[in-house]
Amino acid sequence: MPEGPTLAELGETELIRRLGAFAPRGQFGDDAALLAQDLLDPAGRGGLQLVVNTDVIVEDVHFSAATMGATDVGWRAAAANLSDLAAMGCRDAVGLTVGLVAPGDTPWAWVEEAYAGLTQLLAAHGGVLLGGDCSGGRQRLLAITAIGRLERGHGGPIRRGDAQPGDQLVCTGAHGLSRLGLAVLRDEALPALAPAVQARAIGAHRRPVPRFDAVEALGASRPEEIPWRVAGCDSSDGLAAAASCLALASGCTALIERNALPLAPELEALAAAEDWCLWGGEDFELVLALEPTWAAALVEQLPGTRCIGHMESPQPEGPLIWSDGGGAITPPSAGFQHFS
Amino acid sequence: MPEGPTLAELGETELIRRLGAFAPRGQFGDDAALLAQDLLDPAGRGGLQLVVNTDVIVEDVHFSAATMGATDVGWRAAAANLSDLAAMGCRDAVGLTVGLVAPGDTPWAWVEEAYAGLTQLLAAHGGVLLGGDCSGGRQRLLAITAIGRLERGHGGPIRRGDAQPGDQLVCTGAHGLSRLGLAVLRDEALPALAPAVQARAIGAHRRPVPRFDAVEALGASRPEEIPWRVAGCDSSDGLAAAASCLALASGCTALIERNALPLAPELEALAAAEDWCLWGGEDFELVLALEPTWAAALVEQLPGTRCIGHMESPQPEGPLIWSDGGGAITPPSAGFQHFS
Repeated sequence: MPEGPTLAELGETELIRRLGAFAPRGQFGDDAALLAQDLLDPAGRGGLQLVVNTDVIVEDVHFSAATMGATDVGWRAAAANLSDLAAMGCRDAVGLTVGLVAPGDTPWAWVEEAYAGLTQLLAAHGGVLLGGDCSGGRQRLLAITAIGRLERGHGGPIRRGDAQPGDQLVCTGAHGLSRLGLAVLRDEALPALAPAVQARAIGAHRRPVPRFDAVEALGASRPEEIPWRVAGCDSSDGLAAAASCLALASGCTALIERNALPLAPELEALAAAEDWCLWGGEDFELVLALEPTWAAALVEQLPGTRCIGHMESPQPEGPLIWSDGGGAITPPSAGFQHFS
Repeated sequence: MPEGPTLAELGETELIRRLGAFAPRGQFGDDAALLAQDLLDPAGRGGLQLVVNTDVIVEDVHFSAATMGATDVGWRAAAANLSDLAAMGCRDAVGLTVGLVAPGDTPWAWVEEAYAGLTQLLAAHGGVLLGGDCSGGRQRLLAITAIGRLERGHGGPIRRGDAQPGDQLVCTGAHGLSRLGLAVLRDEALPALAPAVQARAIGAHRRPVPRFDAVEALGASRPEEIPWRVAGCDSSDGLAAAASCLALASGCTALIERNALPLAPELEALAAAEDWCLWGGEDFELVLALEPTWAAALVEQLPGTRCIGHMESPQPEGPLIWSDGGGAITPPSAGFQHFS
């Protein structure tokens, strides 16, 4: 083979940056791909834009038999995909295709349960199974591609790079509970937790929900005089990663208020609470930057939503800092690496 | 795990049948998924239907370093996907997303070459890279989802189940050359072949082409008085499998004329010529069943296209028989099994 770095040496961020060079400029900048009207329909009819999102979920990378049953795997894979559609501004999903890879000795029952979980999520949150492909392989995985609609007149797209200094930073729910669920499932050292708390945490980890309702509320809460402009992504990689990502894509710095951190109440007694809220990941909430009066209206309208900070012009400390002058917010450790 | 069959015990055909039960009725019946107008746009505007196709291509199942370089892998993966769009009646592709899975020690150069091959195919035959996802995993694979358009007024969809007794069976090119290329690459026992023949065979195997031009010719050759009705699929799984598949989906029997077999001329001296023509696979031509005057017009218009038989009402010998009364056409061996 030719000389050069391996994927592990590049890391995921640099790999995605390099792959983006094969696509039209700007095409790789968001949670999902926006099909420009001229790509989709050169004749320019209709008012429809489509959003397409592909997510791969791999055994022993994204899930394991120790933390999830097959039904959870299917539910979660579909939920993660639809969450990316919501993060682009879709209010529902048209449907999805599934590329299934599994070793020949995989029980049919596992596959049946995974598809049952997947179609349960679709039945609850919209969309149908459109098609797919299957193949043998050494490892179980689902490669899912979901398709969503953006309708003109029902709000525009949500893009990562549309934040401006002065925007409020809003998230649609508490963070850290999914990470607590993973800790319970992995038997990590934890203080004693009530059974109900454990159950809620495990549920958050196994059965996340795409926040289409938040997109609906976003549209409904927009003050008439304010034009559509919202930056956003989902918090699948963690709240801090989401805020940082909006800041970088928009050329801003995100300032987070420490006393407004959206800690899941179940984390209160834990030393890791702040880390898990910021970096735990997989809560699948929306993190949005928008004009302050609109942000206030959204917080008013959608229970659980809160302002966690605001955007400013880029600061020397980096894309993500504490608002009290406490400096850069950085991850507690190396974080999750798909290619390690 | 629960009792029950494994995927290897079920086999691919039965697995796909069972997975189809999770989708709306009829959704799994074709080479690709047709997005019904009411799914795509409940308001029913515009004249656009979309086709979505997912194909997974896995190292050591669909390709190996012995038979293909990375550039070929990318080209071929994209070509196979776009061929399924052509088989649904699309004249071009909007674009595709790629789910890339590879071990961390994979050289970036391999990925770069695969995406270069993929975008070469797109540049030559239409479509752009829309987005994707990447993950570590034990085995290299590409899970590709392509999106195509069907425009009202430019011919309807091509569906497997639309054949009728009396239809001519047409294919758009010679068959068996890709299989010969695989034999050369695998050093299978072969008579001496001229270097130019070897090169053409290897090229056919590594660099198939989606037959969008054939769909264009199909539309252009339709006699005005004949309504749009074409059954078809591509011959990725072999010419005989394609004809059999149309017959089964349409409730017909396909009769093949032995002396009209579209043997690639490079196979002439080979004992396996007929087997490879019928069962070799991966030639990615279109196999169509259509009204005889339209079929004749298409053969006239599109060089390389020929009639290879016709459709009749279902015969006791099965879905695929020789027209000279020679009985059922059956595969020479167990055929290719993805889950073995």
